[in-house]
Amino acid sequence: MALDRLKSVAQHVTGSGPPPHPFDPLSNAEIETVAQIVRKEHGKVNYNAITLSEPRKKEMMKWLEDPAHTPRPARIADVVVIAPGGKVCEGLVDILQGKITKWTVLEGVQPLITMEDLQAVEHICRKDPKVIEQCEISGIPKEDMHKVYCDPWTIGYDHRFGSNRRLQQALMYYRPHVDDSQYSFPLDFCPIFDAEKQEIIHIDIPEIRRPVSKAKPNNYHAASVEAEGGYRTDIKPINITQPDGVSFKIDGRIIDWQNWNFHVGFNYKEGIVLNNITYNDKGNVRPVFYRLSLAEMVVPYGNPEHPHQRKHAFDLGEYGGGYMTNSLSLGCDCKGAIHYMDAAFVNRAGESTTIKNAVCIHEEDAGILFKHTDFRDESVIVTRGRKLIISQIFTAANYEYCVYWIFHQDGTIQLEIKLTGILNTYALNPGEDTKGWGTEVYPGVNAHNHQHLFCLRIDPNIDGPNNTVFQVDATQGPGEVGSKENPYGNAFFAKKTKYSTVKEAISDYDGVTSRTWDIANTNKLNPYSHKPVSYKLVSREVPRLLPKEGSLVWKRAGFARHAIHVTQYSDDQTCPAGRHVPQTSGEPSRGIPEWIANGDASIDNTDIVVWHTFGITHFPSPEDFPIMPAEPMTLLLRPRNFFTKNPALDVPPSYCSTPSQVAAKSGALDAADKMSKLVVAGGEAATTSSSSSSCCKK
Amino acid sequence: MALDRLKSVAQHVTGSGPPPHPFDPLSNAEIETVAQIVRKEHGKVNYNAITLSEPRKKEMMKWLEDPAHTPRPARIADVVVIAPGGKVCEGLVDILQGKITKWTVLEGVQPLITMEDLQAVEHICRKDPKVIEQCEISGIPKEDMHKVYCDPWTIGYDHRFGSNRRLQQALMYYRPHVDDSQYSFPLDFCPIFDAEKQEIIHIDIPEIRRPVSKAKPNNYHAASVEAEGGYRTDIKPINITQPDGVSFKIDGRIIDWQNWNFHVGFNYKEGIVLNNITYNDKGNVRPVFYRLSLAEMVVPYGNPEHPHQRKHAFDLGEYGGGYMTNSLSLGCDCKGAIHYMDAAFVNRAGESTTIKNAVCIHEEDAGILFKHTDFRDESVIVTRGRKLIISQIFTAANYEYCVYWIFHQDGTIQLEIKLTGILNTYALNPGEDTKGWGTEVYPGVNAHNHQHLFCLRIDPNIDGPNNTVFQVDATQGPGEVGSKENPYGNAFFAKKTKYSTVKEAISDYDGVTSRTWDIANTNKLNPYSHKPVSYKLVSREVPRLLPKEGSLVWKRAGFARHAIHVTQYSDDQTCPAGRHVPQTSGEPSRGIPEWIANGDASIDNTDIVVWHTFGITHFPSPEDFPIMPAEPMTLLLRPRNFFTKNPALDVPPSYCSTPSQVAAKSGALDAADKMSKLVVAGGEAATTSSSSSSCCKK
Ligand SMILES: [Co+2]
Ligand SMILES: [Co+2]
Repeated sequence: MALDRLKSVAQHVTGSGPPPHPFDPLSNAEIETVAQIVRKEHGKVNYNAITLSEPRKKEMMKWLEDPAHTPRPARIADVVVIAPGGKVCEGLVDILQGKITKWTVLEGVQPLITMEDLQAVEHICRKDPKVIEQCEISGIPKEDMHKVYCDPWTIGYDHRFGSNRRLQQALMYYRPHVDDSQYSFPLDFCPIFDAEKQEIIHIDIPEIRRPVSKAKPNNYHAASVEAEGGYRTDIKPINITQPDGVSFKIDGRIIDWQNWNFHVGFNYKEGIVLNNITYNDKGNVRPVFYRLSLAEMVVPYGNPEHPHQRKHAFDLGEYGGGYMTNSLSLGCDCKGAIHYMDAAFVNRAGESTTIKNAVCIHEEDAGILFKHTDFRDESVIVTRGRKLIISQIFTAANYEYCVYWIFHQDGTIQLEIKLTGILNTYALNPGEDTKGWGTEVYPGVNAHNHQHLFCLRIDPNIDGPNNTVFQVDATQGPGEVGSKENPYGNAFFAKKTKYSTVKEAISDYDGVTSRTWDIANTNKLNPYSHKPVSYKLVSREVPRLLPKEGSLVWKRAGFARHAIHVTQYSDDQTCPAGRHVPQTSGEPSRGIPEWIANGDASIDNTDIVVWHTFGITHFPSPEDFPIMPAEPMTLLLRPRNFFTKNPALDVPPSYCSTPSQVAAKSGALDAADKMSKLVVAGGEAATTSSSSSSCCKK
Repeated sequence: MALDRLKSVAQHVTGSGPPPHPFDPLSNAEIETVAQIVRKEHGKVNYNAITLSEPRKKEMMKWLEDPAHTPRPARIADVVVIAPGGKVCEGLVDILQGKITKWTVLEGVQPLITMEDLQAVEHICRKDPKVIEQCEISGIPKEDMHKVYCDPWTIGYDHRFGSNRRLQQALMYYRPHVDDSQYSFPLDFCPIFDAEKQEIIHIDIPEIRRPVSKAKPNNYHAASVEAEGGYRTDIKPINITQPDGVSFKIDGRIIDWQNWNFHVGFNYKEGIVLNNITYNDKGNVRPVFYRLSLAEMVVPYGNPEHPHQRKHAFDLGEYGGGYMTNSLSLGCDCKGAIHYMDAAFVNRAGESTTIKNAVCIHEEDAGILFKHTDFRDESVIVTRGRKLIISQIFTAANYEYCVYWIFHQDGTIQLEIKLTGILNTYALNPGEDTKGWGTEVYPGVNAHNHQHLFCLRIDPNIDGPNNTVFQVDATQGPGEVGSKENPYGNAFFAKKTKYSTVKEAISDYDGVTSRTWDIANTNKLNPYSHKPVSYKLVSREVPRLLPKEGSLVWKRAGFARHAIHVTQYSDDQTCPAGRHVPQTSGEPSRGIPEWIANGDASIDNTDIVVWHTFGITHFPSPEDFPIMPAEPMTLLLRPRNFFTKNPALDVPPSYCSTPSQVAAKSGALDAADKMSKLVVAGGEAATTSSSSSSCCKK
């Protein structure tokens, strides 16, 4: 076996292929090697995760600086298993050394729920006599149990069952026909599933019963659209092509595009991880972020009735944004010229699995990058922008999250998230009032109010690791109207408040001041503005956590209590709601609440991590059903005082003329897109008024 | 002359062409006809504006309902002229009747500044001895006066000069070379120009003098980019084509696209006007908005020193978003298959002029419209969206505003505005402190803090003209954690507050509650949710007006004091800062402050107008210079409880498979875009891992 292992490992470090980059996710071969090592030592266990234990930052920063003369960081695997009897163990495996370097048995902890864990529950529910009984009460005869479905959710935390048993709650649905959307037929009871015993240990039954809806199915599949008149036929194709190929280069998992350079990682919890993001500023390669990722989420539901308080999924920490990720499809999920990356995981048996096309990398036209016309002579410059998008889509039971990391030519990094998929629904009797805790989106279907709160982990490296965060508030100047200092009352300025300590940094969004946050390197001033080089976090979708202080969600999702937390960098602080999230009680709160316990720790001009919670509060409406049009939200990380000028000035313009060229009527630079056409109808221009236009010539 | 007039008018109402739609802007022929009528009556005058006086709403609503049996609303022109001696007159002309139906001489009022007005100032400045003297003091010899430029701005209001003289302030700049960007060389003094006398009547000279900068030019034109290494060569073309044409139909200025139908108007002040927006809901044509437009803007600058308080341009009311609009260029401003509309205006002499390609109409791919994967069997639907964009770009001296009205298939209307162009700049001495009122974006260049505040006029027609606005706040449920009503502390709901009166509706954004506003028809409930049909205004970029209460800006820009005002509909209330904005003193405040004077007026279930102020506060940085990468802001009008389901279900999916199709391994609907390609390098797939992917087949 050691031979096998060494052989597969050898592919990476010697022989044919180049060694993996230290940030590269574990390969299928590495995963299987690790499983073998663990199996040898600990026998047959259920594998929960085998993932890259990322290199310690200090060591990695050294290597990045001079890879030729620095020892390559070791390939370490982070392993979580569930041994027979439900014993949870975690450890580290040095892959090249072929040995387990750390092994711990954990008590009262549940690692995340895998897709395999989820798949099991429905089958067991269908056979459980108590579930069958409840289905009959709901109006479903026992011969129809194959029409009963469940979305297994993590249980959140239920004090009756604690943390030692590995549990899921089964949100129950009915499908009259196998192709019907089950979310139109929610059932009113909720079985509790014990993963170790593989059985239903309890069923939560509401006081008021709500038999299965008699409404007709509400579907979105082709047959249902055809039955209602068919698909619209008046939408013509838009073709997006790149005949000369793409503008980015790929070396392993390192992307080089328009002065940006970064490594694309991927893991089972966070999904996409962007590492070592640098910007080539006229030959000077400047670090910007050491690491960016979505680190956690929580989706609290707002119906106070038992057991709906348990619905507050931590989709990343409890299921994994990597594990749930879609295999993307050319021409469906992304259009144009696409590069994909696969994702390798371990399955329960310790075999490696692959999600093909887990990450999509492609370019899009970004509209006007900049434009100016001189009104005197109509000399003009118009330059179109381009963006590079690194994306994934993951399915969390009913919901879909589309995550787009977007790089812009002006130095901006944008994170866009689109929410789509299907609302979580609960049963409602005819005439029953939702009491405002939800919306009847279809007869008998109550879609509860909820929030989608994401935690963005920003590990900045703004011209170096020692950074400082400033809160920036648009503020009126001092002095009343008519005063000497503010005679006309028009004074306003950007009030910057330095966060010197962890405590000071605990902060919320302020819409009144259009609050933003500068992540700055105070050791380096912009030569023109004399202000620290910085990246500004511009984020406007920042609802507060609506579950109250002291509530279960508030205790478990400590990261979501505030929009901003800043901590000193620590290699082990990556999971803002704790490393093993399922069934945490929130007593004590894990993750960020632990890390900010020492409020006096300095975050001034040192290696820091910024945690930003953002998202939306979702009050459903019938338009969101039976499948929800994508709802976008976005935030920006924008260079401010980082460059000495617009860094995109050298992007070739579509058209550019100077006053002297306009006067000479020649010399203008015309690189307009010649593929664009005027709309023509029936072989001739639709309007004579526009038929004579030519590019930018006035 | 009457014959000429009748002949040109006849083109529209009889004979060859169809008559203009009552919402159509005046044609060139109509404009010239009107000028002739006015000239006959009032002799030689300077024409400031001849524009459509839109039909009275009551009359127009009737006509829209049954155009075949209702008298067509008359073509009425709204005329503003400046007669010799500076006498300002305005009137109405009935075009078909060929007569002036109303004529008024105005006192103490200045109509907006036209491009012709602006063009004159620079030439006069260059010849003015006092300006030449100041240039010499600044270090510019008098033989270099041809290198001196000015951006003429409306004066705002200066109490020393009042409102009776027609004035502009000349923001002065220097260009070492004719092709150099002048904004790197601001001069420190400010001449005041009298448009009637055509002379400089005063120069504001600061106490501290700031000679012209000796820094080297900071340009963005081709020669300067070439001198610094040239354009980047690593960006490959993206072609966007519609081989089968576009998906919209145009009948005159009426657009029909994906169930949307609306009329595209255009006027000199507001630019694009969208009228009679309806949605065909499965054969039922439902009114949504009677009229949408950007009605006003103000851009206050935050430097308290005299005379910078005068910098607070009302770009629409003082210059006109139509007058300043760009002639757009195929393949530069918009890519793909484009339809353009021209704009017709009057010039000072009373001749009609045309801006070619003033409005761009085109489609874009909109990414994923909705997607869901069933985790059980990977049955999936993925549907891509399309959007229709009606856009214009206008140049306000240094700044460019790109305005995009975007229609989505899910019933959403989005307004996106991109800011680009060049910062307004002022001189700064070496070593001088900006004191926080601006940023030194280049040596000697102080870019002052400012806000861009837009006023969106929403004239709703949500299933009829009688509408009501509700404020919606995401709110925690009552009862503390552990209480009977909120045992788990997780309760939250959408708190809806009806605005019954004008006074109640005066409101601001609240970031804490993620405030939105529902524009609802309380007479019609959604059959599923039992909530009023509505469109929700979702707007997150809503800074408060930073100039203080009682300040000049606060008095003049009354509309900007609050994010929301709601008024009873009135045909004559279209200009939220008043009809003639230049040189208003703000005593009394014009426009909205007048209209909300009766705070008790009912706005409950009646014909209303919603005024929404939004925008950004801009603290410049060197990245914004010498030309600014586009900064986007956006807001949404989303259907909520308006439809009974996702109205885009019948958009053909890229791929759709049901559980039974997955089980049968056939029958899936596959219409994926076959133009999309995997990235290939050197003739073969760049990665073997992705070379085997095919659309959506798992
Ligand atoms: Co939601
Ligand atoms: Co600005």
